[in-house]
Amino acid sequence: WCVVDRGGVDSLKREFRFADFASALAFTNRVGALAEEAGHHPALLTEWGRVTVAWWTHAIGGLHRNDFVMAARTDRAYETISEDDGPDS
Amino acid sequence: WCVVDRGGVDSLKREFRFADFASALAFTNRVGALAEEAGHHPALLTEWGRVTVAWWTHAIGGLHRNDFVMAARTDRAYETISEDDGPDS
Repeated sequence: WCVVDRGGVDSLKREFRFADFASALAFTNRVGALAEEAGHHPALLTEWGRVTVAWWTHAIGGLHRNDFVMAARTDRAYETISEDDGPDS
Repeated sequence: WCVVDRGGVDSLKREFRFADFASALAFTNRVGALAEEAGHHPALLTEWGRVTVAWWTHAIGGLHRNDFVMAARTDRAYETISEDDGPDS
């Protein structure tokens, strides 16, 4: 994860690699489900073989503890997918 | 749709608005299904209440007729969702 400026607001950003578009989109949905559970929503850029996730807290215009929690959950979701489907990256 | 430079490559880009994160993610999945059908894949940025779609042709490093076809299909998918769910934008 890198701390990246999104229009004057710090965010946590990481790129995840996949074998194809469908696997990338499946991960987007998995992270989307985590977001809905938590009531905290990231930016998810889905491309062929790649999803770039950014977490930040709109209300404070930057990073909150919760963003780090969500980043860790995102990593765990990725590890689980990798275990299910074999290593992708 | 605007023609936008993505790292030296022209792409067609448009932002679509939604009522919440779940509706935005549903649209991402709908456009993802169109992409898989066509074997032609966009960049899909999913955020709370918003999906930004970009189409371009990797093989020629720019825009091909197919990108305009996919842009039109994306619009049609959005119109269909709007009809199903009521006007969002």
